[in-house]
Amino acid sequence: MTSPAERFELLTDLYELTMAASYFENGMADPATFSLFIRKYPPGRAYFVAAGLEDFLEYIVNFRFSESDLAYLDITGTFSHDFLHYLKNVRFTGTIRALAQGEIFFKDEPILEVTAPIIEAQILETFAINTINLQSMIATKASRCVHAAGGRRLVDFSLRRTHGIDAGLKVARSSYIAGFVATSNVLAGKVYGIPISGTMAHSYISSFGDEIEAFRAFARSFPQKTILLIDTYDTVAGARNAAIVGQEMAKEGGRLLGVRLDSGDMTRLSQQVRKILDEASLDDTEIFASSSFDEYKIARTIKEGARIDAFGVGTRMGVSADAPYFDIAYKLVQYGERPIMKLSPGKVNLAGNKQVFRKTDPQGRFLEDIIGTWDETVEGACPLLEPVIQDGKLLKSHPSLEEIRERFRKNFAALDEKYKALENPPVYPVKVSARLNALQETASG
Amino acid sequence: MTSPAERFELLTDLYELTMAASYFENGMADPATFSLFIRKYPPGRAYFVAAGLEDFLEYIVNFRFSESDLAYLDITGTFSHDFLHYLKNVRFTGTIRALAQGEIFFKDEPILEVTAPIIEAQILETFAINTINLQSMIATKASRCVHAAGGRRLVDFSLRRTHGIDAGLKVARSSYIAGFVATSNVLAGKVYGIPISGTMAHSYISSFGDEIEAFRAFARSFPQKTILLIDTYDTVAGARNAAIVGQEMAKEGGRLLGVRLDSGDMTRLSQQVRKILDEASLDDTEIFASSSFDEYKIARTIKEGARIDAFGVGTRMGVSADAPYFDIAYKLVQYGERPIMKLSPGKVNLAGNKQVFRKTDPQGRFLEDIIGTWDETVEGACPLLEPVIQDGKLLKSHPSLEEIRERFRKNFAALDEKYKALENPPVYPVKVSARLNALQETASG
Repeated sequence: MTSPAERFELLTDLYELTMAASYFENGMADPATFSLFIRKYPPGRAYFVAAGLEDFLEYIVNFRFSESDLAYLDITGTFSHDFLHYLKNVRFTGTIRALAQGEIFFKDEPILEVTAPIIEAQILETFAINTINLQSMIATKASRCVHAAGGRRLVDFSLRRTHGIDAGLKVARSSYIAGFVATSNVLAGKVYGIPISGTMAHSYISSFGDEIEAFRAFARSFPQKTILLIDTYDTVAGARNAAIVGQEMAKEGGRLLGVRLDSGDMTRLSQQVRKILDEASLDDTEIFASSSFDEYKIARTIKEGARIDAFGVGTRMGVSADAPYFDIAYKLVQYGERPIMKLSPGKVNLAGNKQVFRKTDPQGRFLEDIIGTWDETVEGACPLLEPVIQDGKLLKSHPSLEEIRERFRKNFAALDEKYKALENPPVYPVKVSARLNALQETASG
Repeated sequence: MTSPAERFELLTDLYELTMAASYFENGMADPATFSLFIRKYPPGRAYFVAAGLEDFLEYIVNFRFSESDLAYLDITGTFSHDFLHYLKNVRFTGTIRALAQGEIFFKDEPILEVTAPIIEAQILETFAINTINLQSMIATKASRCVHAAGGRRLVDFSLRRTHGIDAGLKVARSSYIAGFVATSNVLAGKVYGIPISGTMAHSYISSFGDEIEAFRAFARSFPQKTILLIDTYDTVAGARNAAIVGQEMAKEGGRLLGVRLDSGDMTRLSQQVRKILDEASLDDTEIFASSSFDEYKIARTIKEGARIDAFGVGTRMGVSADAPYFDIAYKLVQYGERPIMKLSPGKVNLAGNKQVFRKTDPQGRFLEDIIGTWDETVEGACPLLEPVIQDGKLLKSHPSLEEIRERFRKNFAALDEKYKALENPPVYPVKVSARLNALQETASG
């Protein structure tokens, strides 16, 4: 079963539903606010990139338990018929304020706050964390790769090792937001409109058994779109074969777009291959490299003087290998009139409905953030959380993927370089406003 | 969009389709065999657990490009109309031999081999790797947790931080195969029939503002199914409150199933809490712990003398945090009559259609494996790859999840303890048969 379910309201931890049942039976229906935020920086990270909001909002506005969901819950024997009847009609009627996708944010800052009758807000927890965690984690990881590449193009090659189908699609989308130029994932091309890109596999070369014959056959099929994989036998010999085929293509009005290196010492090989291509007057044939790249290897390879024009970035980006999860939480911060703070060791959060304010210099460069109460204003600072759902309704249509990508690009340019260091970046200044601090004194656990 | 697509034939790398187009245009239609295998052990691992075959087989037998898929491919401008017409009618007509789900396997051993006209076999690559990698990786990780827990029960709590929706479901299924007893994921309960389990969140306690009142309210809602979370304010004080409520429940004919610890020093706290419960005559109230557990922390906590009856195992299992991907590959090993070996540095594979043979002692314990040719027999050894699809048709119905789980249990019991060591396990002996070795001499790259 590749798609074992059509609706995902039950894609939730059981306790969301048992708590809901108990709130229902105890008549607890006051508005509650839950805040989604990241509690700490994973190694080497000093910022995060917001992504995934669109999926969460679509989930919310379409939220309803199906008859078959309710039938399943009934047979678990855990829930009363009164409660199941209530669930049948439950819809989201509350308010959501959120960071725009493509926004840069920091530890402890709310990515979004949900305010609704407590049951409605509680049962969104698992899905909210799941989808925002994955997409923000990958957008953050991908942004590091883009930064390390210093203007060279990056293509998402991760699909085969992403954690499943949904991750395959979301990784393509999130890496595109962060500045990747294309993906190998054809379905992501169809669904999201992301440019798709591809070369050939070793199996193609092997099936011919003769490298140059394989190159010629592929060039015949794609005279304008050929990138030849040259490491099946020996990369340098492969480059010479590619140069011959590139010259043949040129004679017939085609053009060899590029060659791909997939194993060995990327720096040395790329220099040798560049020389071979240049000597064959294939100056505009690019060198494409794909070999366990992530931000660290990209940076190292470029520093060593590699002649690589574009990188295929796969597994390590697609699973965020050095930080495959964030310490992200969805916490109750207000119930009725009461601000709430969790006090468990290492898990303290800021009570109350909040707003994030950002101070920038006249050129728009980030200076510092202030976490304040939702209803205050901070002079000279811009509030970042925007209302996106009110009374259960979307307030506006979703931005296009290109708009989100452009928002990220502008934001990232406004973030000082030092916070983009791959290792040991300094901590960006995030303060708590006097008013929010005062509120903490009145909060209960 | 939580489910942006209904079919997943395009969930593939673009190069699968460009290669297919070129095979088509060059009239290459000989049968090819591709082998799916893991090239090396991640840190600390000496075995793998096969999972995910069912999804792959269902994908294959239902494989067909939809009209909208073909329309999308057409607008990319990459493919000829002849080829798109061919794709419209392409179905899988080949053969697949595979390890059963729940089987234990080792480095270099084929998990499955696909034999079909080269286009049909090639275009399955991305999906095959994606789904088998995820599910085998998680089943392997989960089996390590089960082993470390030494008979204590484990529940999958990972949904919120799995990489997306599909991973959430597949992690629940794969960890159940490996011996977890339940999942918090309600949809996995509905779809796969896995037992579901849950407790309560800190938000529940905080919304009442008074711990013992919250405990009493939950106990009223679930007099037979209550597990109380006791660390919201102070774990020891929480245990005393839970003991009071447990005694109240007992008086009214209910029973406090358990308490849950979620922060702090698990060993010391579990011992203190056990004492408090025992002194309140709540001997059968269990202690449930959930606090960043993985196999390493489970083993350490048990060794220190923790009094924990069951563990909620979340994020680190659900993303296989110490090994979030396997070095898994799908390689062409035979084309027509020609065995094929890839020779790129560090990426050599075994040519030819293969079989895996396992030698066991009279008690059924694993002695060694031999990778041989598909058509040989190895005396005293049992072949593990079974035909599952022939002429494009499923040969039998899928085993039930309980059957797969039982197969894993038996297999795991037959694997010597030393290979289950969490760190620096020895390498299990896997040999190559004389006949397969001889075939390598004739293979081309």
